[in-house]
Amino acid sequence: MNPNYYCVIMAGGVGARFWPMSRLKTPKQFIDILGDGLTLIQKTFNRFTQICLPENIFVVTSADYKELVQEQLPQISEQQIILEPSRRNTAPCIAYANYKIKEINPNAIIVVAPSDHVIFREDVFFNIIEIGMKAVEKNDWLLTIGIRPSNPNTGYGYIQYDEDKVYKENSSIYAVKTFTEKPELSMAKKFIESGDFLWNAGIFMWSLKSIEKAFHKYLPEVDQLFKQGQGFYNTPGEKEIINKIYEVCKNISIDFGIMEKAQNVRVFAADFGWSDLGTWGSLYNIRSKDENQNAIVGKRVKTYNTNNCIVNMPKDKIVILEGLDNYIVVENDGVLLICQKDNEQLIRQYVTDVQVDFGDKFI
Amino acid sequence: MNPNYYCVIMAGGVGARFWPMSRLKTPKQFIDILGDGLTLIQKTFNRFTQICLPENIFVVTSADYKELVQEQLPQISEQQIILEPSRRNTAPCIAYANYKIKEINPNAIIVVAPSDHVIFREDVFFNIIEIGMKAVEKNDWLLTIGIRPSNPNTGYGYIQYDEDKVYKENSSIYAVKTFTEKPELSMAKKFIESGDFLWNAGIFMWSLKSIEKAFHKYLPEVDQLFKQGQGFYNTPGEKEIINKIYEVCKNISIDFGIMEKAQNVRVFAADFGWSDLGTWGSLYNIRSKDENQNAIVGKRVKTYNTNNCIVNMPKDKIVILEGLDNYIVVENDGVLLICQKDNEQLIRQYVTDVQVDFGDKFI
Repeated sequence: MNPNYYCVIMAGGVGARFWPMSRLKTPKQFIDILGDGLTLIQKTFNRFTQICLPENIFVVTSADYKELVQEQLPQISEQQIILEPSRRNTAPCIAYANYKIKEINPNAIIVVAPSDHVIFREDVFFNIIEIGMKAVEKNDWLLTIGIRPSNPNTGYGYIQYDEDKVYKENSSIYAVKTFTEKPELSMAKKFIESGDFLWNAGIFMWSLKSIEKAFHKYLPEVDQLFKQGQGFYNTPGEKEIINKIYEVCKNISIDFGIMEKAQNVRVFAADFGWSDLGTWGSLYNIRSKDENQNAIVGKRVKTYNTNNCIVNMPKDKIVILEGLDNYIVVENDGVLLICQKDNEQLIRQYVTDVQVDFGDKFI
Repeated sequence: MNPNYYCVIMAGGVGARFWPMSRLKTPKQFIDILGDGLTLIQKTFNRFTQICLPENIFVVTSADYKELVQEQLPQISEQQIILEPSRRNTAPCIAYANYKIKEINPNAIIVVAPSDHVIFREDVFFNIIEIGMKAVEKNDWLLTIGIRPSNPNTGYGYIQYDEDKVYKENSSIYAVKTFTEKPELSMAKKFIESGDFLWNAGIFMWSLKSIEKAFHKYLPEVDQLFKQGQGFYNTPGEKEIINKIYEVCKNISIDFGIMEKAQNVRVFAADFGWSDLGTWGSLYNIRSKDENQNAIVGKRVKTYNTNNCIVNMPKDKIVILEGLDNYIVVENDGVLLICQKDNEQLIRQYVTDVQVDFGDKFI
């Protein structure tokens, strides 16, 4: 295993669309949402132990989740848990990790990935990461993974690749024409028809040197801020300086801040069975289902005249469902949600309403 | 208050159609099902304290519910709680109470009533009971109350009265032509059209002497059995003899065993706002509703695009309901039921299924 290979797992999200399973105090990445015994972050960590040495895997998360990470990933040291004092989106998160890693290994080759996605064909995934890591070791590239889309999903960003500009050593690595945020359905349909758009999976590979250069050029103010921490990283003084940096650091995504602007971006078109598990509907799609197309977690759920539902119930609870079609039925920690699957975008509103009416305790 | 007036409250039912609120260990009559702070049996008891001396009110129930009765009706003595060792329907229950009361007061005038009905216009009810009690004091009648029907409900038994044979002193007390068990809808519609059918409310008035005579004539084997207990009633030996009697006593209702056969039956046609609260639907009908016609018990239930539902939730539970029309949504003690209101007759089946699959604990 290449000792220069590093992984940064981003685990700071709150997963509000998975409420009430995902909760402020236990977001989605810390839940065994597939019901198979491992939380999403545990699965993600295990996956990257195939790529990097375990001590080279860093987790960036909110300071609130330090204990959760320690509990769920007991094999990593405190040093490997990078705690953000507040949420500032992905660019500051990556900048922070870069400076920490730089003090350990300035020749690092880094893969950055979210903690809460699922990957079905891990062998394909490993192969792509390995090819990608080697490519960014040799080339000054910011390499992102683009998923071959199966439908005009409006929940993802899209990357348009340039078919004519293909990496000679691997016919699936292309130059990028455009990044697009979540499109309208009509636009998404056009993207799919055109054949040269990919879903933006939010998985990046680059050498530390390349990403440093990009920060320097495209987000110099963010870079300058984190540079102030040099000499403090990986020391007892780190926390204090980081608190100061985050107080003034702007909130900006790596896509918007760098990827959409840089000229050396490449995309690796891939197809390894991927889902960002962004919504109950996306979880429903990948779950195994019974003969009535119900995806059920819960040992004592009985359904009658009920179809196409996703059900997550505490394992000891007796649940009788009659006459429901295409619903989300979820209970967790004192909260029950029953909602039509097609209206799952309303869940954010419910979370807000509950917060306003009953307080933070339930969100 | 007439010291000869007695009341027998029948409280042995299990209320299976109200599952999962009504449970084997806490049936419907012991629940505050209207959400107003009093259980149904408490309301029933309080009502009859307007008719009889409190010490003349007896509660007949299963031995399993002795503690519940003592808890909920602390004002009554142990002597007033008549415990049946097993369920044998209403005729044995009444025979047992008769023999107990006989040893205290052979001149008793008795009203027998279920513990789990609701009555909205209590002033009208009191007036009717008072007239009825006076009538059965003077006449050798078995008087039952018939409710003027508002719709062709198939959940009730019907009583056809004889308009030509009316009690001269009260134009609402009639002779009875027929008793009918729960009819088909088409039949129920004909009943309503005919104008001479009433709902059988299961509330009876008679003198102890009249009902004794009726048992002697129409259910002599039941009467003979309970006669064996004479000398033991209201003594420490009662329990032993009663256990023996119930072991061999047949299961039969007072309607089938006596009322449908006796010639001295009279019916008091009444209209005091009555419901037997037999089903969730009947509870829905009488509950107050919000602007979307939802009848909700639960302090933290939020509804969106949800109409015509009956919802009973633990008071601290956060519940979000979206896109439900005409459903029953009930949670109680580890069981959640979601079921279309129009399919509530299936609840009995669910209870059976749960018992088979998960054991008695949940029924």
